Amino acid sequence: MVAILGGKGAGLAEMTKLGLNVPPGFTISTEACPEYLSKGTFPKGLWEEILEHLKILQNSSGKEFGGLKDPLLVSVRSGAAVSMPGMMDTILNVGLNDQTVEVLASKTNNRRFALDSYRRLIQMFGNVVMNIPHSDFEEAMIELKIKEKIKSDTEFTEKSLEILIGEFKEIYGKHHMTFPQDPLNQLKMAIEAVFKSWNTERAVTYRELNNIPDDLGTAVSIVSMVFGNMGEDSATGVAFTRDPNTGERKIFAEYLSNAQGEDVVAGIRTPHEIQDLKKEMPEAYSQLIKSAGILEQHYRDMQDIEFTIEKGKFYLLQTRSGKRSARAAIKVAVDLVAEGLIKKEEAILRVMPETLDTLLHPQVRYNGTEKLLGKGLAASPGAASGTIVFSSERAVELSKEKRKIILVRPETTADDVRGMAVSEGFLTQKGGMTSHAAVVARAMGKPAVVGVEAMNVNLREQTIRIGDTLLREDDTITVDGTNGQFILGEATLETSSITPEANVLLKWCDEYRKLGIRANANTPLEARVARENGAEGIGLARTERMFLGNDRIQIMRAMIMSANLAERLKYLDMLLPMQIADFTEFFRTMDGYPVIIRLLDPPLHEFLPDKEGILNEIFDLKLKLSSTKDSKEMDDLISKLSELKRILDTIKNLEEFNPMLGFRGCRLGLSYPEIYEMQVKAIITAAAKVKDQGHSIFPEIMIPLIGHSNELRTLRNKLEKVAAKLSEGADLEYKFGTMIEIPRACVTADQIAKYADFFSFGTNDLTQMTFGYSRDDAEGKFLASYLEEGILASDPFITVDEEGVGELMKMAVRKGKQARKDLEVGICGEQGGDPETIYFCHKIGLDYVSASPHRIPVARLSAARASLLQSR
Amino acid sequence: MVAILGGKGAGLAEMTKLGLNVPPGFTISTEACPEYLSKGTFPKGLWEEILEHLKILQNSSGKEFGGLKDPLLVSVRSGAAVSMPGMMDTILNVGLNDQTVEVLASKTNNRRFALDSYRRLIQMFGNVVMNIPHSDFEEAMIELKIKEKIKSDTEFTEKSLEILIGEFKEIYGKHHMTFPQDPLNQLKMAIEAVFKSWNTERAVTYRELNNIPDDLGTAVSIVSMVFGNMGEDSATGVAFTRDPNTGERKIFAEYLSNAQGEDVVAGIRTPHEIQDLKKEMPEAYSQLIKSAGILEQHYRDMQDIEFTIEKGKFYLLQTRSGKRSARAAIKVAVDLVAEGLIKKEEAILRVMPETLDTLLHPQVRYNGTEKLLGKGLAASPGAASGTIVFSSERAVELSKEKRKIILVRPETTADDVRGMAVSEGFLTQKGGMTSHAAVVARAMGKPAVVGVEAMNVNLREQTIRIGDTLLREDDTITVDGTNGQFILGEATLETSSITPEANVLLKWCDEYRKLGIRANANTPLEARVARENGAEGIGLARTERMFLGNDRIQIMRAMIMSANLAERLKYLDMLLPMQIADFTEFFRTMDGYPVIIRLLDPPLHEFLPDKEGILNEIFDLKLKLSSTKDSKEMDDLISKLSELKRILDTIKNLEEFNPMLGFRGCRLGLSYPEIYEMQVKAIITAAAKVKDQGHSIFPEIMIPLIGHSNELRTLRNKLEKVAAKLSEGADLEYKFGTMIEIPRACVTADQIAKYADFFSFGTNDLTQMTFGYSRDDAEGKFLASYLEEGILASDPFITVDEEGVGELMKMAVRKGKQARKDLEVGICGEQGGDPETIYFCHKIGLDYVSASPHRIPVARLSAARASLLQSR
Repeated sequence: MVAILGGKGAGLAEMTKLGLNVPPGFTISTEACPEYLSKGTFPKGLWEEILEHLKILQNSSGKEFGGLKDPLLVSVRSGAAVSMPGMMDTILNVGLNDQTVEVLASKTNNRRFALDSYRRLIQMFGNVVMNIPHSDFEEAMIELKIKEKIKSDTEFTEKSLEILIGEFKEIYGKHHMTFPQDPLNQLKMAIEAVFKSWNTERAVTYRELNNIPDDLGTAVSIVSMVFGNMGEDSATGVAFTRDPNTGERKIFAEYLSNAQGEDVVAGIRTPHEIQDLKKEMPEAYSQLIKSAGILEQHYRDMQDIEFTIEKGKFYLLQTRSGKRSARAAIKVAVDLVAEGLIKKEEAILRVMPETLDTLLHPQVRYNGTEKLLGKGLAASPGAASGTIVFSSERAVELSKEKRKIILVRPETTADDVRGMAVSEGFLTQKGGMTSHAAVVARAMGKPAVVGVEAMNVNLREQTIRIGDTLLREDDTITVDGTNGQFILGEATLETSSITPEANVLLKWCDEYRKLGIRANANTPLEARVARENGAEGIGLARTERMFLGNDRIQIMRAMIMSANLAERLKYLDMLLPMQIADFTEFFRTMDGYPVIIRLLDPPLHEFLPDKEGILNEIFDLKLKLSSTKDSKEMDDLISKLSELKRILDTIKNLEEFNPMLGFRGCRLGLSYPEIYEMQVKAIITAAAKVKDQGHSIFPEIMIPLIGHSNELRTLRNKLEKVAAKLSEGADLEYKFGTMIEIPRACVTADQIAKYADFFSFGTNDLTQMTFGYSRDDAEGKFLASYLEEGILASDPFITVDEEGVGELMKMAVRKGKQARKDLEVGICGEQGGDPETIYFCHKIGLDYVSASPHRIPVARLSAARASLLQSR
Repeated sequence: MVAILGGKGAGLAEMTKLGLNVPPGFTISTEACPEYLSKGTFPKGLWEEILEHLKILQNSSGKEFGGLKDPLLVSVRSGAAVSMPGMMDTILNVGLNDQTVEVLASKTNNRRFALDSYRRLIQMFGNVVMNIPHSDFEEAMIELKIKEKIKSDTEFTEKSLEILIGEFKEIYGKHHMTFPQDPLNQLKMAIEAVFKSWNTERAVTYRELNNIPDDLGTAVSIVSMVFGNMGEDSATGVAFTRDPNTGERKIFAEYLSNAQGEDVVAGIRTPHEIQDLKKEMPEAYSQLIKSAGILEQHYRDMQDIEFTIEKGKFYLLQTRSGKRSARAAIKVAVDLVAEGLIKKEEAILRVMPETLDTLLHPQVRYNGTEKLLGKGLAASPGAASGTIVFSSERAVELSKEKRKIILVRPETTADDVRGMAVSEGFLTQKGGMTSHAAVVARAMGKPAVVGVEAMNVNLREQTIRIGDTLLREDDTITVDGTNGQFILGEATLETSSITPEANVLLKWCDEYRKLGIRANANTPLEARVARENGAEGIGLARTERMFLGNDRIQIMRAMIMSANLAERLKYLDMLLPMQIADFTEFFRTMDGYPVIIRLLDPPLHEFLPDKEGILNEIFDLKLKLSSTKDSKEMDDLISKLSELKRILDTIKNLEEFNPMLGFRGCRLGLSYPEIYEMQVKAIITAAAKVKDQGHSIFPEIMIPLIGHSNELRTLRNKLEKVAAKLSEGADLEYKFGTMIEIPRACVTADQIAKYADFFSFGTNDLTQMTFGYSRDDAEGKFLASYLEEGILASDPFITVDEEGVGELMKMAVRKGKQARKDLEVGICGEQGGDPETIYFCHKIGLDYVSASPHRIPVARLSAARASLLQSR
């Protein structure tokens, strides 16, 4: 009945209906509001009804509204069907006046509390109901504080509160108003104020932006006040129905006797453990336990409860879903299934992928002794400790000494990326969740806290000043990007680990997801991690990384610099056994699963030494040559020089204006078919060998950078011959397929599918070409500002751009499957590990996603959620 | 009736029907062939019918087949509905035997001719009908030549021909056959051979490849032979109905009396001019003139006629559409319209865009004195003269001396592109129409002759050897890429010019084309040429070219290196009046037409000096610094060094991995809005000024590199403010629009169209990104081999790739016009001047194409043809 009673009203009614003891009250339904607003007066009969219900309230509580024996106080709360900022929230303590305040004082035995409550009512009422500027009351308080030389509101004595009440009343006078002493008057005016708040500018704008109809109106709840500070038989407290840190099923609560809710939050007195309540107020305790049980049963989730015990009577003030740690979130979800409260599907939907991800990043294990230095925005999750460095240059310098570094900047720009690359985490004074630092940090998977406005980073002096603390280079801090705070010194970090409950949840995910999960792994070690994390195959093994080892790079270079085919074949023959060994190990690790191996992709110059380095070496040798007179040394230098010049020639020959769009991928394969032939030979030989050893293995050979079906047709014909010859009699299943990473490949996917057993979306390159962004250049130069200014809603290299790149992907899936029904389609771009992208991939009918090994659990969860969310 | 009579039979029938005197004959219809092939015998009654028609033939000619008074000789010709290689063509002189040959000898008074004809019949019949290997006859001829110490067939005497006939008959004997002396037997066997040739392997394969049904069959024509060498009242000749060089309407013919057709072609005797025929054989002459007229009327085109006069009687042997020069082609087409023979539409369709293009390139004006050195493939049209150079390096060197160069290579590779850029034309020994040299030449618009296999290019010796000629560097040659030949020395070149007839044709084109024609012009001079060539506006004016002048580049650099906004604004203010002057001139030139001005597009580093140059300068200064002791000079050097280092820093800061996909276009505009604001200010100020002077002008402001609608929205909002403010009260119409050159822009064209008044396809970049090709890299590295190997059917940078890029263009047009009906859509990529691309642009509903100024005529013609071709 949220539409009629509003959110709050319905909540109170709900709890009452559950038989829980909530402070009695009643709710004016939402229909009254628009009528009041259009006529300017209460709908006919409304006030009479209110009075009637007030009477019921008095009867049930034994208190009297405005009465001098035991005065009933109420709160007046707004509550639309949709929670809406800009509307009046709550006026507490309605019913207090010059008389009842004293009754309350003696009843609670706390005159200061009574006076303070009265002061608050007058102030809130003046501001919200009478529209007296808030500052008028604030100024009066500040002046009094100065006069009494106190700093905080809590230092006001009874005497000063009396003065303040007087002054507040005078403020009303200045505005030609009086604070209404008649409680009924207070009530009526408060209700009217709630009605009117429906039409404040902020509320109207909010409705406009969120398409909420203007004629819904707000409900008004009138609830009787209860007090936990009515003596030693009174108390107030908060309780979680389970442990919010571990998720354990036991009440997790604390309380203060003879106290108000505020006191618990303020932390002035140390709260009691809940066991004490059992001893001291067993009845209330059992009510609490019972209530917690009922609420969990009803809401089917762990609850965060506020309660008050007034003169031994237990009242539930509020209940809501309890905030919890990542670990607890997963445990609670899994436990609730075991308890029969929710189904597996719901458990899966309750755990956000980000929550699981948090579990997988190192986190601070807080023990209460940490010195928190400051708070900012939690821009990139995880935590890291290191020494402070203020510049990229210095970061690079110190990183060479294997120092762990936290880069601290007022804000970061493209120039800082080098420094960020060698740092453990980042801390910035400025910037939001989409600032350069935030974007780069998330992309790098490193923790970052940004926008710590209270901190002053002084680059000239190389210091951070925050509060009383002054930090310099070499000081150690810990950045907690999960909670958005940073800590002095090295905090205890908990390294990532999947809890047993997470494993249970992930198993369930495997039941519900439709998407297969594979991993991008370039080494057998990575493949092992992927398999342990639940990957069902390798979606991308980049063979080029295998050539970077010290022994191999030399052979690779010699191959590249070969003057002719014969020479090139000689070096390829040397690489062949190494590749066979690589693949053998790979296939053994992935026993039973498919493994997609991508043939050589990057431009050849990536395997050659850096040009500037060679130029410098040549320069040095020339200098030496000019100064030596030793003939033998000269010969030596000259021969070295000529070798370097040969390398330089090759580099220059391979140099490109735009290597991303250059001579690489299948273009290389078509020019030098012998390279791909060697790789296919290695793959098939290794597979046959592993199969011979009793493993089962499904190699899938992926040809990169196909843009035209003729490229694939030509290469497949060539390579299929090599594979067929080697696998003869071995009964080996293998597939040939291609990356879809060029826009043209999407547009002509029907042509390409004729020659492909599988497609794998290379969304990194596809995004680069579809947007015309060079990622290397864009991230430093304009992407950050595009995100900051909202030109792009999200980083397309993290989440697939559905409108553009996604549209091309859809086209490729449609055309590809049209041409070949059994076409296997997956994604191996980095975005494949992103929950939103996974949802998209599910929707457009992909067969699997492939993510980096550490993202596999997140991918499994996201895939299951995608399937469940879609079927909703 | 081509289906029944075959091509040749129908042609003969057609001419007969026109009342023209062709040698009498008859045709066996195509249905007979399949029946013969399936049964192995003539269909019932066929032979009887043949004999009947032969009788008619004898009657009409007064000759007798096999007769000894005046023997009738016939040719037997195959002729399917579709011309088909691999089938038997013709057997001449059927009807000759040991007796009739002597009759023919005395009749023609030329026994040698009669014997040679007989020798040929025996040989051809033996080979084609009896399947005796061709080599058997060839060997006999060679042996006889050796014996008689002669070289050529024409040197055989009557005596030796008699010997040869004897030997040929013996060859039949060796194969256990005899040459049939019975003419009817000859005829029957020849007809059977024609039937059988329908099923030769080559013919079957050809039908398979071209989807021609196997059961069509071939017709057989039996035509009586006529001879132009029957005495002084006989003659033979060829005639064009109009001058094939100029297109003038007058018979253009030559003939030889008492001669055979072969003699005319062989050029042994100098032919007579046609005027002589008028005097010598006035009757035959008037027949020729009459026939020419009838044929032109019938075929509605200039004809190339072969005729023979036998004993005063005029025979038409063949007629076909005559080959003609580009100039003639256009004149004939235009004249035929004036003569009422064809309509304007047909005239337009008869002139190929390539023909018009030829007219616009410099061409060799041959005067007969040229020394032709050799022939190869006509790879890129036009002609150029220059001195021979054998390497790119040398070409670059000599080009600095303003020498005109022809680059000669065995074949070209990427390394030669620098040399090609500074050369006038190219000549290669190897390669085909899609070889590297051919592709690059066409792209550069320079003449090239490739694949001159008879030529030997010796790089070591730096020589060309062809036939007896030896050429060295510094020798001058002329390359005629239109005809695929090259000439010693400097030939007379005719520079491009549009003939009056071409102008008439182009005016007609303007009536029929639906596409608008604009030009890509970067300077007012180019705009003027464009306008003269018929452009109706500017489709692309690249503003960046305007910053390259010597005075401006310095300001531009200072602007780029500015430390802050204030400094940048200062330099922009200096550029503003220069830009205003540029645009003022532009707008005046294009009075009455729209002008699209593209805001700054290239990455900023393109305006900075070359990095290596700066590094070298720094190195030099450092050397100087280390050797000087003069304190003043040191200060000087240090200050120079620090300036250079500042430049170097900026260069390094702007350096990109893939500048094509980097910080340029609207990305720059969004980061430094002040640059675009200055440009818009200049455009609007200039436009208002020009309008004030009484011109009418329609500026269209084009924002480059839009990939997301938010980019355009943001920039348009900013710039519209500038424009609106300046144009207040000026009643100036202007548009804002964007290049569509990023795949994502095509996919999201509906979003982008919300903020664009016009789209202009930048198909250069769109092709680069859709294919993932960096043009600069691809053209040298793999594009040539892709074209050579047929992976790509055509160069996508010359002709739009319809399947990929074109599909995206279609999507953009559809989505764009969906969102905004009046969206103006054009193309300004280089492909916009390509006839095929223009046809495509017409089909997908573009409003205009924009091409380089010299391509405008070709574009006008192509656009009209597109419109006519589509409506067919």
